[in-house]
Amino acid sequence: MSVLALDWDIEAAGGRGALRLLDQTLLPARTGYRVVTTVDALVEAIVELAVRGAPALGVAGAFGVVLALDEAEREGWDAARLDAEVDRLRSARPTAVNLAWGVDQVRPLIPQGREAVLAAAHALAAADEAANRELSARAADWLLERTQRPRLRVLTHCNAGALATSAWGTALGVVRELHARGRLELVYVDETRPLLQGARLTAWELRAEGIPHTVQVDGAAASTVLRGLVDCAVVGADRVAANGDVANKIGTLAVGLACREAGVPLLVAAPWSTVDLDVADGDGIEIEQRPDHEVTTVGGVRVAPEGSPAFNPAFDVTPARLVTALATERGVLEPAAGRTPGTAEHEGMSFTS
Amino acid sequence: MSVLALDWDIEAAGGRGALRLLDQTLLPARTGYRVVTTVDALVEAIVELAVRGAPALGVAGAFGVVLALDEAEREGWDAARLDAEVDRLRSARPTAVNLAWGVDQVRPLIPQGREAVLAAAHALAAADEAANRELSARAADWLLERTQRPRLRVLTHCNAGALATSAWGTALGVVRELHARGRLELVYVDETRPLLQGARLTAWELRAEGIPHTVQVDGAAASTVLRGLVDCAVVGADRVAANGDVANKIGTLAVGLACREAGVPLLVAAPWSTVDLDVADGDGIEIEQRPDHEVTTVGGVRVAPEGSPAFNPAFDVTPARLVTALATERGVLEPAAGRTPGTAEHEGMSFTS
Repeated sequence: MSVLALDWDIEAAGGRGALRLLDQTLLPARTGYRVVTTVDALVEAIVELAVRGAPALGVAGAFGVVLALDEAEREGWDAARLDAEVDRLRSARPTAVNLAWGVDQVRPLIPQGREAVLAAAHALAAADEAANRELSARAADWLLERTQRPRLRVLTHCNAGALATSAWGTALGVVRELHARGRLELVYVDETRPLLQGARLTAWELRAEGIPHTVQVDGAAASTVLRGLVDCAVVGADRVAANGDVANKIGTLAVGLACREAGVPLLVAAPWSTVDLDVADGDGIEIEQRPDHEVTTVGGVRVAPEGSPAFNPAFDVTPARLVTALATERGVLEPAAGRTPGTAEHEGMSFTS
Repeated sequence: MSVLALDWDIEAAGGRGALRLLDQTLLPARTGYRVVTTVDALVEAIVELAVRGAPALGVAGAFGVVLALDEAEREGWDAARLDAEVDRLRSARPTAVNLAWGVDQVRPLIPQGREAVLAAAHALAAADEAANRELSARAADWLLERTQRPRLRVLTHCNAGALATSAWGTALGVVRELHARGRLELVYVDETRPLLQGARLTAWELRAEGIPHTVQVDGAAASTVLRGLVDCAVVGADRVAANGDVANKIGTLAVGLACREAGVPLLVAAPWSTVDLDVADGDGIEIEQRPDHEVTTVGGVRVAPEGSPAFNPAFDVTPARLVTALATERGVLEPAAGRTPGTAEHEGMSFTS
């Protein structure tokens, strides 16, 4: 995967550097970029989902603090204004914990100057990729041990690939790892309405690497699982509560219900930065409500009658009892069996696997 | 609801009469009709879903036999050719039992002549509407008794409305009945990918009658149910097996899983003609596989990358253990509690309620 969701373009802004985002709203029809030099433009890109995916948002948040510092210098912001702008960036989207986390990782370095913040943001991006590779290997080990099958048929929902992270991916990182080991048979890709990140982004990533896949509507997922067509489901996460409840793209919950019914493992792949131990359970996770038009139109074409309103929560919460495994770079937990992030943290992170 | 999905236009074909279909592929953008005078055109309309919905297909099948007789006379078909054409119509779509059933209801009257067949088709349409009204009343009674709530919040999937029947509707007939009794609060309408019958057709029907509703993506259904936002789910059926397994539009299964998890009743509303006692359970129901492009494009716009294939089963099977109630014009059965169509038939149809 040579295309990155985001990187720091050192030549942009007259050699000052700027954040370059692959504009994911344009995929798969074309590949275009946004070079972002202001907090405003970054918030807009985040809200429009030009950049999206919990880990990528964390990295974008960290580089965004650099942009805020540069903008403060250009515009003559005082400390209070800088603080307010960083806060605005931090809360551009509410559900994924990583955005706030990424900002918070580098913010304490502001007194040490812009280069220190930039270096920390680069380190965060590198750590994200390393974490993804580590959790993918651990997840693949767990899945192969659990399923005892030579080659796996995997269902995934939304896009938790390279496009959702600094590189490699979480759920699709697991898929890549299985493929690299010669242990992958086929990926069922939920299209993931309303914004079709599965059909547009996951299929695009898989096709680019020649990984066998087929796209299905979200409503087909439960049936595909119960008909015995998959060996496991692997998804990412936007926030994981201390008890193992998982907020992820709307539609994940139905996959979880189907997996438990069929006795098929649901593995959630996420870096430890996605775990929010300050939130006891899913009830404490704010669910972003997005605009009606995402549901009532597709590609600009209205599909519901004029005047029909829409209900458009962007995420759902899959309760821990449905989460067979939570694979992080620190190890694999089994929330449905009572091994939760909260208990693991309490016990000194001596994770299984 | 003054618009009918299909009716016999006595002035068409030079006064001979022909089947007039509301072209549902055009909704909600515009209202257009197809006047169908040949088996070919009817099969095409059925395959393209210009006419769809199990009960409507039954009525279309019956009138289609009249069209075949007229065509036989015009074209000089022999009995074998007529038979082959009627067979072709009968199997234009495989999953809904009603199409074959509707053909079979009138076919034995062929020796009595065209007018006898036409009269039988009209009787079938009238009986369908009467059955829908009866099952809707029985279903509303059952739901109000079961939920003990003053006004119900109902989730529905796909379109089982007037557009899917000769008139009134099955699942939406139940909604209409609740609304007429002043006992309806809100309908959550699953958009129902790939062909968006929920967003396009159900929302259109509800809007036309001023029934409060909101459209959601299919992936939101499980979350809506588990968050306690609905009191029941009400869906139609394309075929019900003797054991109570229900084939319905892809995505229904996830609704059923969520309902059981949340302790919310799933009511399947269908005329008894949808019950196929010759099929023991869901494994015996053929699931129609439809073309890739329905998934990979939306409104003609490609959403998946060129070359990515799709998996496109049109229906899923909700096992009887998830079907809280099956409302037919003969009464309400409770398959999840062991009261199945097969046992009811065996016991002489002394249904509950």
